Amino acid sequence: MVLGGSTVEALRIGMLGFGTVGRGVADLLLNHQELLSQRAGMPLRLVRIATRTPERDRGLSLGGVELTGDVNRVVNASDLDVVVELIGGFIPARDLVHRALESGKHVITANKALIAEYGSELFALAQSKGVQLGFEASVAGAVPVVKALRESLAGNRVDLVYGILNGTCNYILTEMREKGLPFAQVLSDAQDKGFAEADPSFDVDGIDAAHKLAILAAIAFGTHLDFARIVKEGIRHVSDTDIAWAKEMGYRIKLLAMARLKEGLLELAVRPVMVPESSMVAAVEGVSNAVFMHGDYAGTTMYHGRGAGERPTASAVVADLMDLARDLRVGSTGRIPALSVPVHHLRTLPIRTASQRQGTFYLRLAVTDRPGVLAEITAILARHAISLDAIHQKGRSRVEAVPLVMVTHETTEERIAMALVEIEQLDSVREPPRSIRIESGLA
Amino acid sequence: MVLGGSTVEALRIGMLGFGTVGRGVADLLLNHQELLSQRAGMPLRLVRIATRTPERDRGLSLGGVELTGDVNRVVNASDLDVVVELIGGFIPARDLVHRALESGKHVITANKALIAEYGSELFALAQSKGVQLGFEASVAGAVPVVKALRESLAGNRVDLVYGILNGTCNYILTEMREKGLPFAQVLSDAQDKGFAEADPSFDVDGIDAAHKLAILAAIAFGTHLDFARIVKEGIRHVSDTDIAWAKEMGYRIKLLAMARLKEGLLELAVRPVMVPESSMVAAVEGVSNAVFMHGDYAGTTMYHGRGAGERPTASAVVADLMDLARDLRVGSTGRIPALSVPVHHLRTLPIRTASQRQGTFYLRLAVTDRPGVLAEITAILARHAISLDAIHQKGRSRVEAVPLVMVTHETTEERIAMALVEIEQLDSVREPPRSIRIESGLA
Repeated sequence: MVLGGSTVEALRIGMLGFGTVGRGVADLLLNHQELLSQRAGMPLRLVRIATRTPERDRGLSLGGVELTGDVNRVVNASDLDVVVELIGGFIPARDLVHRALESGKHVITANKALIAEYGSELFALAQSKGVQLGFEASVAGAVPVVKALRESLAGNRVDLVYGILNGTCNYILTEMREKGLPFAQVLSDAQDKGFAEADPSFDVDGIDAAHKLAILAAIAFGTHLDFARIVKEGIRHVSDTDIAWAKEMGYRIKLLAMARLKEGLLELAVRPVMVPESSMVAAVEGVSNAVFMHGDYAGTTMYHGRGAGERPTASAVVADLMDLARDLRVGSTGRIPALSVPVHHLRTLPIRTASQRQGTFYLRLAVTDRPGVLAEITAILARHAISLDAIHQKGRSRVEAVPLVMVTHETTEERIAMALVEIEQLDSVREPPRSIRIESGLA
Repeated sequence: MVLGGSTVEALRIGMLGFGTVGRGVADLLLNHQELLSQRAGMPLRLVRIATRTPERDRGLSLGGVELTGDVNRVVNASDLDVVVELIGGFIPARDLVHRALESGKHVITANKALIAEYGSELFALAQSKGVQLGFEASVAGAVPVVKALRESLAGNRVDLVYGILNGTCNYILTEMREKGLPFAQVLSDAQDKGFAEADPSFDVDGIDAAHKLAILAAIAFGTHLDFARIVKEGIRHVSDTDIAWAKEMGYRIKLLAMARLKEGLLELAVRPVMVPESSMVAAVEGVSNAVFMHGDYAGTTMYHGRGAGERPTASAVVADLMDLARDLRVGSTGRIPALSVPVHHLRTLPIRTASQRQGTFYLRLAVTDRPGVLAEITAILARHAISLDAIHQKGRSRVEAVPLVMVTHETTEERIAMALVEIEQLDSVREPPRSIRIESGLA
């Protein structure tokens, strides 16, 4: 095989970062050498790993793999075909990936933030250098959603992609529902168990899911990466009251990432929504991830599995390495554009604004229990042309606020937002009102 | 692009068969010309369709597509790069695919029976001719299970693949449970609605699911195609009584296709089993298909969607065409062996026999309601070392047989079979006893 001007007999791999996922990748490559070689038609050889802690014992027999504290020995090396970036974050990952691509090496990464925010420059660079930039591991771990969207649905016009893309949030919401506990307590338990970070904001504020959604949307619609325009709403405001009400009404609350293209307008949102208890997306529980894709010929296909963790993420990284090895064995690269179409065909689509985003909503208020309150609130809703499908009030109290729950008919997000601003100013309303969108039509 | 010695600018497609799926493929190719061209880097051009009824109006604007009654004008043509075989069955499909491959054309097929039973000779021929034989559409319609297993799980040792591979059976079992109707009536309704064939035996006797399982197992384990050794048991004997009992015990009955590799022994079976009501496989309802795959790094990943029909199957056929076009654009073919490893690496693994197939079982008998019956039956079970976890009897009758339902502890299929032969001979046993395996451990 001819590669980079010289004949090589193996895919020579350098790795940046040797944390949890790095350990998984090294373990897999060392464990399954013969299997991988049979399937790829050449060995996958882990040559060198750059890590800040080369001396730390990770419980692996690394054989001839070289450990170095110097990233240059990976990104500048002439004896490597591909660099696997598993550092995460932007600094120094962005610069290192740039340099690896510049030097003509293929790159495979699990770094969703990097792809979502700097993918455009990186894909253009990779394309100009004739090398590949693989990122299957950046979305949904072991679940092959990038490949499914880019290859298996290649014959479809895709108009809808949605799913559960953050295992931490899904775990928290599942625990809240099953144990009837408030958000803060479940979060703190999850941190103790290692399911949530010490600083959880990337997860619970919807940033991580939005990074992944940006990637899926760009592939689905052939658009530029568009992280900035995604509506991002996390789960901090989801209360145990909301969860209990959802249950009572036959719904579950999920942090749903959704990209929908309708009438030429794009809706990109990560937010808590209510989904029917009997839907498949409601059945995705705990740390699992799942992605649903609707294509005009395929209909809805769904992909489910472990979205994070040492071994599942390693499986996705190695899938990209295998694709690369199989390409190089037959002397081809650049078979498939990173975002499904070549960079010059990528579009920017107009976004559906809040006044165009229609739906039905659950509203939850905490009100003083006295005559006339309901009249004030419903008058405001009526003024914004919001009509109600249902209204529930439970419990009575002279002293404390009581919850008032309403479900609207079809209206717009803008109307809901404007009405809630006015409602919040009423004396009888004791906490900021909350709204959660209801998605009744999902598979 | 250089192809077959001459420069071509498009993937030139010939089609054999113009039934339901053929119509879907033609419709997709004609509808999405620009989209496909952008994504593949070259147009996909439907040149010619051979059909027994070229004059029939199918409601499509075929433009320049040539219709012919002569299959030779497709398989022998020099102006085609790929032949899409959508005739189904063995005669004349097998011969035509042979001839197309012999003439150096790539072939894409949705024909599960052909691949399951003659795949070995066809893959060897394709490999020797340096052409590709795609068959994603042969298993689970729009759900990309061949690609997932062969590419996305390429880094994994897979030990378990199972799923719902026959939509007709799943529809019948779903209807039986939801409406409380017997098999014969639901089958007849399904035939009226076009969900079941006039001769339903391919579906309801498990043959169709076994064809698909043979294909998945060969890819998963890198083995020769092994349709003959699959245990095949259909759903004709599943009664409304069984369905009702399953519900009462917290299970659902599904026609499950399963390939499991454990301790070097292979278990290949298509049969009705009871799965926990709360499992994801139980949630696969109606005509849907779903496949679950367990890999040592990925864990369990699941793929769900429409397993048949004009448009979903067309989506899968075109996915294979797009893969081929993307290969040819960069001048490569044969990137990925059909069954994951090259033909000379394929293995034949020993099968787990009935005496080695362990599990727990539901047993259903129809017995005369008189003293001593239970003693006779349990004595036989004890003699075969089968112990019981539960026993249920409902209803009393002097005249008619009453159902007696038992659930065993872990035992072997052989013991169950031998015990049931003896039990059937008892005077008090009025119908052939039935057993259904219980799979409690599935995702």
